[in-house]
Amino acid sequence: MKAIDFRDLFKSYENYNEKEIEIEGWIRTIRDSKNFGFIELNDGTYMKNVQVVFESHLENFEEVKKYSTGSAISVKGILVMTPEAKQPFEIKATEITMEGESDPSYPLQKKRHSLEYLRTIAHLRPRTNTFSAVFRVRSLAAFAIHKFFNERGFVYAHPPIITASDAEGAGEMFRVTALDLDNVEKVDGKTDYTKDFFGKSANLTVSGQLEAEIFALAFKNVYTFGPTFRAENSNTTRHAAEFWMIEPEIAFADLSDNMQLAEDMVKYVVNYVLENAKEEMEFFNSFVEKGLLDKLDNVVSSEFGRIDYTDAIEILMKNNDNFDYSVQWGTDIQTEHERYLSEVIFKKPVFVINYPKEIKAFYMRMNEDDKTVAAMDLLVPGIGELIGGSQREERLDMLEKRMEEMGVPKEDMWWYLELRKYGGVKHAGYGLGFERLIMYLTGMGNIRDVIPFPRTPKNAEF
Amino acid sequence: MKAIDFRDLFKSYENYNEKEIEIEGWIRTIRDSKNFGFIELNDGTYMKNVQVVFESHLENFEEVKKYSTGSAISVKGILVMTPEAKQPFEIKATEITMEGESDPSYPLQKKRHSLEYLRTIAHLRPRTNTFSAVFRVRSLAAFAIHKFFNERGFVYAHPPIITASDAEGAGEMFRVTALDLDNVEKVDGKTDYTKDFFGKSANLTVSGQLEAEIFALAFKNVYTFGPTFRAENSNTTRHAAEFWMIEPEIAFADLSDNMQLAEDMVKYVVNYVLENAKEEMEFFNSFVEKGLLDKLDNVVSSEFGRIDYTDAIEILMKNNDNFDYSVQWGTDIQTEHERYLSEVIFKKPVFVINYPKEIKAFYMRMNEDDKTVAAMDLLVPGIGELIGGSQREERLDMLEKRMEEMGVPKEDMWWYLELRKYGGVKHAGYGLGFERLIMYLTGMGNIRDVIPFPRTPKNAEF
Repeated sequence: MKAIDFRDLFKSYENYNEKEIEIEGWIRTIRDSKNFGFIELNDGTYMKNVQVVFESHLENFEEVKKYSTGSAISVKGILVMTPEAKQPFEIKATEITMEGESDPSYPLQKKRHSLEYLRTIAHLRPRTNTFSAVFRVRSLAAFAIHKFFNERGFVYAHPPIITASDAEGAGEMFRVTALDLDNVEKVDGKTDYTKDFFGKSANLTVSGQLEAEIFALAFKNVYTFGPTFRAENSNTTRHAAEFWMIEPEIAFADLSDNMQLAEDMVKYVVNYVLENAKEEMEFFNSFVEKGLLDKLDNVVSSEFGRIDYTDAIEILMKNNDNFDYSVQWGTDIQTEHERYLSEVIFKKPVFVINYPKEIKAFYMRMNEDDKTVAAMDLLVPGIGELIGGSQREERLDMLEKRMEEMGVPKEDMWWYLELRKYGGVKHAGYGLGFERLIMYLTGMGNIRDVIPFPRTPKNAEF
Repeated sequence: MKAIDFRDLFKSYENYNEKEIEIEGWIRTIRDSKNFGFIELNDGTYMKNVQVVFESHLENFEEVKKYSTGSAISVKGILVMTPEAKQPFEIKATEITMEGESDPSYPLQKKRHSLEYLRTIAHLRPRTNTFSAVFRVRSLAAFAIHKFFNERGFVYAHPPIITASDAEGAGEMFRVTALDLDNVEKVDGKTDYTKDFFGKSANLTVSGQLEAEIFALAFKNVYTFGPTFRAENSNTTRHAAEFWMIEPEIAFADLSDNMQLAEDMVKYVVNYVLENAKEEMEFFNSFVEKGLLDKLDNVVSSEFGRIDYTDAIEILMKNNDNFDYSVQWGTDIQTEHERYLSEVIFKKPVFVINYPKEIKAFYMRMNEDDKTVAAMDLLVPGIGELIGGSQREERLDMLEKRMEEMGVPKEDMWWYLELRKYGGVKHAGYGLGFERLIMYLTGMGNIRDVIPFPRTPKNAEF
């Protein structure tokens, strides 16, 4: 007999009424009296537990009574319906076998633990309700993203992780080296990177966008989904040194196509998770963020708003007295402003477009006004910016001018410039921080709790 | 009117007979005579080109004649069937618009280029037939992997890229640092990593397996798919410093379950690619590896062989005279032996299992004989090892003994040991090098040609 996964069992348990089945999993709780006992078992494939009833006729009854929380067991038993009870069925055990003991020091006993404490046992926290739900939603959301782009014929591209170029301006990158740091060879007091593995200084990527542009100008529609890095020494609930990004890039496309794609993608992923993680989403709605399901339903059913940066600033200025940071044309929009726009003004997700060139990156396409660039940020209620993107500057002379103005070295970027020389059609793209999406989907408030093993200043445990 | 993607057009062109459509793409070739001309257009969404016919009645006929290879254009025109010709239809242009010019210095002119040369223009090579096929197959294979595991309810886990632990023994890892290498602070002559970003020495991961075990012991069935790194200074056709790995890990499972999963996965991915990349696979079969399709059909239709290492050595020893390296019990199996077993002896993929403990990693489960461990390598005709895996040592005392014998520091691995203390049921897993799979699927002979921007010694361009 082969054990049935819980996710299958909860779909088909009615077929097993009064039949013997085998299940396996880890003991979440166990309690007993003189002649019988109950085990809440979870096998990790589903949010819900199966209740196992064991009685004194079991050969190893006395032994089973002593099994401790966290132990792995296998159970043969008869499935019986329990229409009166909270759970739809239970298993009357005919045989219980220990598969992997758990020491009584097991930290995940019944009491509630703080999220802070659980971070210190990241090797065990996926076994709690909260984190099993978070990481299952993370997995499903990742699949939804691949499925969305696959259905539209997008090519999934893997830009390099180790790179010698820098998309957004240096200073916050991790260095990658095979040099012996105890004995760095120097030339004129400077590290001699010609002796390093790649023959020059190399870093961890902060974005795969520039390489995604290469692919978009060959395959038309492409996306990336991989890890990116920032050596930013900021200890906030929203920053991690290592996080995953999704970066679609589309050719023969402008800012408007780009917004449509982003809106379609967000709705697709939210829908997919709502449909495929019902129990998990109800759990979050009850225990993590009240109103989560309403919030997400609103995202799926509303048409996203669109507003020019210039118009948005006009609206925000009327409310300057109530902001910590007041705005005027030319200033960057902070989280408080983003949330005001999406929560108070639009009451739904909204794209802010056409930002002043001074506060955006060199590769964004200059608008006719010569003051703004074809940038877009998607702001969503409850979180602020979820997506940032732009139409890219495809005109070689304009791009070179912007690079000179902003001090971006052209020599290193010869290939990026050549893309404009050889069939460099209009194209656009955006970046979605995957962890930010998961925080939005689950209501979890700290990025450390939506990534399995967070990397933050002074922390690279596990 | 919105342009139709070629991949849709080639599926549905019969619906557009004699109708006007719009297409867009890059000029692969253009030739003309006095009153008409032909453009081979490709939009990147499909392997095949569309032939555009343009005639002298076009307003900008003389201009179009001068368009150069590599330019991006959009075309409105009437689709007409061409039953006599190689291509099933062509477009008679009514309007052609330049969308992005290409300089006449465009390197991808009609002549064939060497793979070595194309590596130097990795920003343009995805526009060639070969590389558009390679990277589309890569994308489809990646999706097939996600789809396979999703259908089986596996949780997709993201192990850390930056790590302070080391799964396979140090020495070949890249260091990740935010220290100023020109001015490294030292204590007693040694680099003071307490001043570094993570407060200790950190590296790029060589494998996500150990963290995947954490997830398997919570979710039962999990997999990873992400980049891994080796700072190995070897310039071969099969080694890159950065490559992608798939690492499934399954709990309540032994070596036999592990082999079954690997066999199912390989067949699923091969089938998916054969079905979804017909044109690309025929291209590889014709121009890259004759017999490729037969080879892959054989993989899909045969039951993979299984043989003990000890028996395999016996077979190999009979042929020692013909090997560059002769084998005996205890030696590692080299590529020539792997290929001999799968190509000559089994004539199909074969698992070799139960290797001597001395040549395998500390985490592999010790067999009853106390000499071999429950390891498995999948050897395939034409390439040798495709997959390596094992049942993991779940017995705490045995694991500690092996770590001591092999000098693996236990303090850093406290959490890995604790997995055995708390419900550490039997579990198993394997690793599949994604680039090796793509080489196998496409027949491409160099890892540099199956990864978009390869990282090798002295090379981190793009």
